Amino acid sequence: MGNCCQVFKDYFCRPKNTNIRIKLPVVCFTWQIAMIILFGIFIRYNREADAHWLSTLAEENITSPLENDFYYRYPSFQDVHVMVFVGFGFLMTFLKRYSFGAVGFNFLIAAFGLQWALLMQGWFHSLDASTGKINIGIENLINADFCVAGCLIAYGAVLGKVSPVQLMVMTLFGITLYAVEEYIILNLLHAKDAGGSMVIHTFGGYYGLTISWVLYRPNLHQSKRLQGSVYHSDIFAMIGTLFLWMFWPSFNSAITGHGDAQLRAVINTYLSLAASVLTTVAITSLSQKTGKLDMVHIQNSTLAGGVAMGTAAEFMISPYGAVIVGSLCGVFSTMGYIFISPFLEKRLKIHDTCGVHNLHAMPGVIGGIVGAISAAAANEVDYGKQGLIRVFDFTGPYKNRSTSAQGGYQAAGMCVAILFGVVGGAIVGAILRLPIWGDPADENCYDDEIYWEVPDEDEEGQDSIPPILEYNNHMIHKQQEISESNFSVDQCGS
Amino acid sequence: MGNCCQVFKDYFCRPKNTNIRIKLPVVCFTWQIAMIILFGIFIRYNREADAHWLSTLAEENITSPLENDFYYRYPSFQDVHVMVFVGFGFLMTFLKRYSFGAVGFNFLIAAFGLQWALLMQGWFHSLDASTGKINIGIENLINADFCVAGCLIAYGAVLGKVSPVQLMVMTLFGITLYAVEEYIILNLLHAKDAGGSMVIHTFGGYYGLTISWVLYRPNLHQSKRLQGSVYHSDIFAMIGTLFLWMFWPSFNSAITGHGDAQLRAVINTYLSLAASVLTTVAITSLSQKTGKLDMVHIQNSTLAGGVAMGTAAEFMISPYGAVIVGSLCGVFSTMGYIFISPFLEKRLKIHDTCGVHNLHAMPGVIGGIVGAISAAAANEVDYGKQGLIRVFDFTGPYKNRSTSAQGGYQAAGMCVAILFGVVGGAIVGAILRLPIWGDPADENCYDDEIYWEVPDEDEEGQDSIPPILEYNNHMIHKQQEISESNFSVDQCGS
Amino acid sequence: MGNCCQVFKDYFCRPKNTNIRIKLPVVCFTWQIAMIILFGIFIRYNREADAHWLSTLAEENITSPLENDFYYRYPSFQDVHVMVFVGFGFLMTFLKRYSFGAVGFNFLIAAFGLQWALLMQGWFHSLDASTGKINIGIENLINADFCVAGCLIAYGAVLGKVSPVQLMVMTLFGITLYAVEEYIILNLLHAKDAGGSMVIHTFGGYYGLTISWVLYRPNLHQSKRLQGSVYHSDIFAMIGTLFLWMFWPSFNSAITGHGDAQLRAVINTYLSLAASVLTTVAITSLSQKTGKLDMVHIQNSTLAGGVAMGTAAEFMISPYGAVIVGSLCGVFSTMGYIFISPFLEKRLKIHDTCGVHNLHAMPGVIGGIVGAISAAAANEVDYGKQGLIRVFDFTGPYKNRSTSAQGGYQAAGMCVAILFGVVGGAIVGAILRLPIWGDPADENCYDDEIYWEVPDEDEEGQDSIPPILEYNNHMIHKQQEISESNFSVDQCGS
Repeated sequence: MGNCCQVFKDYFCRPKNTNIRIKLPVVCFTWQIAMIILFGIFIRYNREADAHWLSTLAEENITSPLENDFYYRYPSFQDVHVMVFVGFGFLMTFLKRYSFGAVGFNFLIAAFGLQWALLMQGWFHSLDASTGKINIGIENLINADFCVAGCLIAYGAVLGKVSPVQLMVMTLFGITLYAVEEYIILNLLHAKDAGGSMVIHTFGGYYGLTISWVLYRPNLHQSKRLQGSVYHSDIFAMIGTLFLWMFWPSFNSAITGHGDAQLRAVINTYLSLAASVLTTVAITSLSQKTGKLDMVHIQNSTLAGGVAMGTAAEFMISPYGAVIVGSLCGVFSTMGYIFISPFLEKRLKIHDTCGVHNLHAMPGVIGGIVGAISAAAANEVDYGKQGLIRVFDFTGPYKNRSTSAQGGYQAAGMCVAILFGVVGGAIVGAILRLPIWGDPADENCYDDEIYWEVPDEDEEGQDSIPPILEYNNHMIHKQQEISESNFSVDQCGS
Repeated sequence: MGNCCQVFKDYFCRPKNTNIRIKLPVVCFTWQIAMIILFGIFIRYNREADAHWLSTLAEENITSPLENDFYYRYPSFQDVHVMVFVGFGFLMTFLKRYSFGAVGFNFLIAAFGLQWALLMQGWFHSLDASTGKINIGIENLINADFCVAGCLIAYGAVLGKVSPVQLMVMTLFGITLYAVEEYIILNLLHAKDAGGSMVIHTFGGYYGLTISWVLYRPNLHQSKRLQGSVYHSDIFAMIGTLFLWMFWPSFNSAITGHGDAQLRAVINTYLSLAASVLTTVAITSLSQKTGKLDMVHIQNSTLAGGVAMGTAAEFMISPYGAVIVGSLCGVFSTMGYIFISPFLEKRLKIHDTCGVHNLHAMPGVIGGIVGAISAAAANEVDYGKQGLIRVFDFTGPYKNRSTSAQGGYQAAGMCVAILFGVVGGAIVGAILRLPIWGDPADENCYDDEIYWEVPDEDEEGQDSIPPILEYNNHMIHKQQEISESNFSVDQCGS
Repeated sequence: MGNCCQVFKDYFCRPKNTNIRIKLPVVCFTWQIAMIILFGIFIRYNREADAHWLSTLAEENITSPLENDFYYRYPSFQDVHVMVFVGFGFLMTFLKRYSFGAVGFNFLIAAFGLQWALLMQGWFHSLDASTGKINIGIENLINADFCVAGCLIAYGAVLGKVSPVQLMVMTLFGITLYAVEEYIILNLLHAKDAGGSMVIHTFGGYYGLTISWVLYRPNLHQSKRLQGSVYHSDIFAMIGTLFLWMFWPSFNSAITGHGDAQLRAVINTYLSLAASVLTTVAITSLSQKTGKLDMVHIQNSTLAGGVAMGTAAEFMISPYGAVIVGSLCGVFSTMGYIFISPFLEKRLKIHDTCGVHNLHAMPGVIGGIVGAISAAAANEVDYGKQGLIRVFDFTGPYKNRSTSAQGGYQAAGMCVAILFGVVGGAIVGAILRLPIWGDPADENCYDDEIYWEVPDEDEEGQDSIPPILEYNNHMIHKQQEISESNFSVDQCGS
C-alpha cells in the first residue's frame, strides 16, 4: 500500500487551512437537525418509561413501581457515563497543550455519538416491528454509552493530529460500524461480550490504529515540543485513570443478567484491575535505569485488567482466574508501551498518541481469547444446569449449542471485531485524508491554539511584566501567531 | 432607581476594610449554634430512618427492609450532592486567581445552606402537626441540596466581587425566599417542577442578577487583570461542567414519582443535554473569526439543555421533543454569552461573572414555558387516564383540574419565581450594600489573596531565585502587599 | 526510648540509595504471585455471586434476582471506592512536587491492600468451615476498601518521607494488624463500629503517627523548599476533600443493617459533616491576623465530622446530636492543626505530613467516645424493643447484654484500636528503619524526582528558552541532578 499511499499523499499535498468556521457549524447543525428528524420518526419511550406503564403493572405481575428496571441499571449507567465523559476525557489531557482538545472534543463527539448510537443500535436491537418505532429505556442509554466508548478509544490513537470535523466524521462512521459488528457478534454469532473486550475495545482500538496508519505524518517531529506532558497535566490525566479504574466493574456488569451475573462481573473486574496495578508498577520500575515509575504506564496499563475481563466478566472464571488475567495484562500492556509502540511507529508507520494498542487493542484481544477459552471450558459442575443456560443464554435456537461450540463462536466474534476495525478504519481513514476537513499542519499538531481560544498564560496582566519575561513571552507566542493566520505549509514528507 | 442608587453610593462610599477576622467567625458560630438549637427543637428522623420502623413493617404491608425508600432515592441523591459541591464548585474555578474562593466559598455556603434548608423546607412541607416536629428522610436531603443549588446559582453572578460574610447573608435570605416561593409554586399553585427550571434556576438566576445589579461596581475594570482564566483553571472548570452534565439526569429525576416518571425524566434530560453540546459548539465556532471554540461557552452553554428540561422532564414530551428543546437552548445560551451579557453589563449595569443569565435565568424561563405548554397539551392518549392523574398529581382538591388549567398554573408559577428573584434580590442587595460586610475594593476583586492564605507560587523556595525573577516576583506581589494591609481606597465611581 | 533510638540511628546511618529498580519489582511480583496462589487456594464466589444461585432462589424464599444484595450495597460500595482512590489520593496531592507520589503510591498500595484484605478479613469473617474456602461477595469488597482506608490514613502521616517499597511493607503489616484488631473489636468485644471511628480512623491514625515517630528525621528542614503547596496543587487537593466529604455518608452507612439503619447513618453523617464546615471556617479565620482562610484547614478539618460520626452513625443520636458532634469536631480538628501539630513535631518528634492526628486520630477517638456514650444511653423508648436488638445485634450469646455494658465494650474497643496502632506502628516502624528499603535522603523528601519520571516543566521545548530562564532552570534542576545519581549522604542528625 506504500506506493498507493504516496500517490494519495502527493495528490492531496497542499497548504493546510485549519479555519473551521463554516465546516464545524455546518456539520454540527446538519447532524443535529438530522437527529431531530430521525428521533421524531423513530424514537419513542419504551414500556417502562411510558406513563401508561402504571396501568399495566397488574397484568404484568409487577407488584410495585419499584420493580422498574431503572432502579437496577441506573447506578451502573451513571458510572459508565462518568467513564465516558470524565474517564476518557481526562485520561487524554496528559499532553501539555492539548487538554482543551482532549476533554472538549471528547465531550463533543460523545454527545453526538450517543444520539446516533441510540438510532443505529435501536434499528438493530430495539425496533418494534409492529409500529416501526425504536422504544428506548435504560439499557439503550447504557448501550449508547458503550458504543460511544468504542469511538473514544479510536480518538486516542489520533489525538492531537486531527480536526474536530474529522472527529465528527470518524464518529459517524465508527458508530455505524460498531452497530453492525455488534449485531453480527452478539446476535448472529450469539457470542457473549458483556464488557465489550471484542465489541468495544478490539474494534475501537484497531479502528483508531488503522485510521492513524492511513493518516500517518512522516514529519510529526515538527511538533515534538508539544508531545510531552507537564506536571499538572499528568495529574489531570490521573483523574481520568482513576475514574475509569474505579467504575470499570460497573462497565463490565452494566448489562449482564440480573443477580449473580452482575455481582460476579463486578468481583472479577475489581480483582483483575487490582492485579494489573501491581504488575504495571513492577514492569515500569524495571524498565528505568534507577527504578523510577513512568506516569504513562501508570495512567494506562493499570486499566488493562479491566479491558481483558470484558468478555469473561460474567463467566465462572473464579477469583484467582481474574487475578491471573489482570496480572498478565498489566505486564503485557506496560511492555507494549516500552517495546511495541516504538516498533509500530518506526516499522509500521502507525503513530498511536495514547497507546491505544497497549491499553485497548491488545488487552481486548487477550480478553476475547480468555472469553473463548473459558466459554469452551464451561460445564454444569461449575455453573449448574440452569446457570449454564442463563449465563450463555442457551435458549431458543441456541438451546442445543455446546459450550465448546460457544468457544468457537466467541473466537469467530473476535475475528469479526478485528476485521471491522481494520477494514472500516482503512475506508474511513481514506475519507479523512480528503483535504477538506481542516486538519492541522505537522508543526501544529498537539496544539490547542489551532482550534481553541486559549487564554494568555501571563497571570498578572500585561502591565506588570518586566522586559525580559516579555521577550520570553514573545518567543513563545511567535509560532502561535503564525498558526493563527491559519494558513501554513505542510511539507508533506519531503 | 438610578438616583436613589447614587445616594446610597455616596453615603456608603468609604475605604474598604476586608478584614473579616471577627465578622466571619461570628457569623459562622452564631448561625451554627442557632442551627443546633433549632435542630434540637424541631428536627427528628422520619419513620423510615427511625429504629422503630422495623417493628412497623408488618402493619404497613412492607415485606422487607429493602423496600425502604432509601434504596430508590439515595443513588440520585449522591449524584445531586456531587453536582452541588463538585459541579457548581469547580464550574466557578475558571478565573485565574479565584479558584480557592470559587470552590471554598461554594463549600461553605452549601454546607450552611443545607442545614437552613432542612428547617425552612421542613416547616413548609414536613411538619408533623401533631408533634410540631419536622421529620426528615432521604427526600428532605435531596430537597435541601436543590434549595442550596438556587443560592449557588446566585453566587455565580457575584463571583469574585463579594466577601464570604456577604455570601452567608445572601444564602440565609436566599434559602428563606426559596422555601416560600417553592411552597407557593408547588403547593398553592400545584405546579409541577421536578428539576426546578422555575423554582431553582429562574429564581436563583434572577436573585443573583438583581443582587449583582444593586452591587454594581462602575470601576471593576481596575481588576481586569484577574478577570480571565489560565490554561489549567479552564481544565478545572471542565471538571465542574462534566459532573454537572453527567449527573443532570439524576437531578431532574431525583424527586419525581417512582417508576416510569424517573426513567422518563432521565431519558429526556440525557437527550436534551446531548443536543445542546452540538449546537453550542456550532454557535461558538461560528462566532470566532477562524472558527475556534471558546471555553466559556463549552463550560456553560452545554448545560442549558438540562436547565430547560427541569420542568418538563417527567412529562411525555417524547424523545424528539427533548432533543429539540436541548438544541434550541444550546443556541440561545451561547448567543446569550456573545450578545446579551455585554448588553446587560453596558446598558443595564448588571455584571454577571459566570453568565448566570445565559446558563440559568434564560434557559430556566424557557424550561418553564416548555413545561406550561406541554402540561396544557397533555392528554389521555399520550399519558393514559391513570398516567395523567399520577404525573400531574390530579388528586384531592385538584381532582378536577384540566390540563389546560394546569398549563396556566405552570405559567403563574414562572411569574412567581421571577418575582421572588427580582424583589428578593433587590432587598437583599440593599442589605449587602451596607459597608459592614468586608467586601473587596474594585481593584481587589477576583483575587484570592484578600480572603485566603495563598501559597507562594515560586516552586523551589526563596533560595534559588535568580535576581531577575525575584524582581518580577516583587512586581507581582507589590499589589498584594497593599491589599494585605486590608485598607484600600475605593474610588467609588469617580 | 531516646537513647535506644540513637543507637539505631548511628547503626543504620549510611548513604541513602534510592534506586528501587530491583526492590520494587521484586516486591510487587512476589506479592502478586503470592496473591494468585492464595486466591487459588482460598477465595471463591459467595452464594450470591455464584451461577448456582439462580436455582436456589425458590428454596431460600427469594422471589426475584432483584433481591440480590448487590443492588442494595453496590452504590455505596462505589462511593467508598471513589473515596479510597480519588478521595485519599487527591487529598494528598497538595504538596507542590509530590502529587505523583500522592496519587500514584496511594493507587499502588490500595490495589495491593485490597487483595490482601480480602484474604486476611476472609480468614476471620467469611471462612466456610466445611470447605475451608473464603466465599466473597459485595460486603467483602466494601470491607476490603475499609481496611485499605486504614492504611491510606497511615500513609498520610509519612507522606513524602518514605519509599514505595516501605509503603508496601507498611501496608502488608497494616492490613494484617487491621484484620486482627477488627476481629477483636467487632467479634470478640461485639462492639459496633459501622463507619470505623475506632477500627479505621483511630487505628490507622496512630499506626501512621507511631511509624512517623520511629522514622523521625531531625534534618527534614533540608527539604523545606518542597513542603508547601502551590496554587493549583491546592485545587487538586480540594477534589480529594470534596469527594471524601460528599461520599462520607455512604462510607458510614455502607455495611450497616438494611433499611432504617442505613438511612439514619446517612442523615447523621451528612449533618455532622455540614456542621464541621462552618466551625472549621470560623476557627481558621479567627487564627489569622486578617481573618484569611487557610486551605490546609478547609481541606482537612471539614471532614472531621464524618470521622467522628463513624461509630454512632447508625445509633439514634438524633439529628441535633449529629450537628453538635460535627460542630465540635470542626473546632477541635482545626485547633489541632494550629496548636497540636507544631507541639507533636517539636516536643514529641512526630512529623505528621497531612495532619493525620487532627483529621483521623483525634476525631476517631472522639467518635469512639461518642459511640460508647450513646450506646450506654440507648434505651427502649428511643429505639423500640426490636430496634434495640437489631441496632446492637443483641442476639445469640449477646442476648442479655445491657446497653450500659455495651457502652463499656465500646470503650474497650477504642483501647484495642489505640493499642494496635501504637504497638503495631512501633514494630513496623522499626522494620522500616532497616536501610534496605530505598527511602529518600532528608533533602530529597517530598520530591517526585526521586521515584518518578517527571516531565520537564518548560512548556515550549528546549529551543525557545532565553538565556536567563535557562539559567534559572539550571539552578532549579541542579539539585535534582544530584539526586538522580541516587546516592547522596544523609547527614543523620548531625
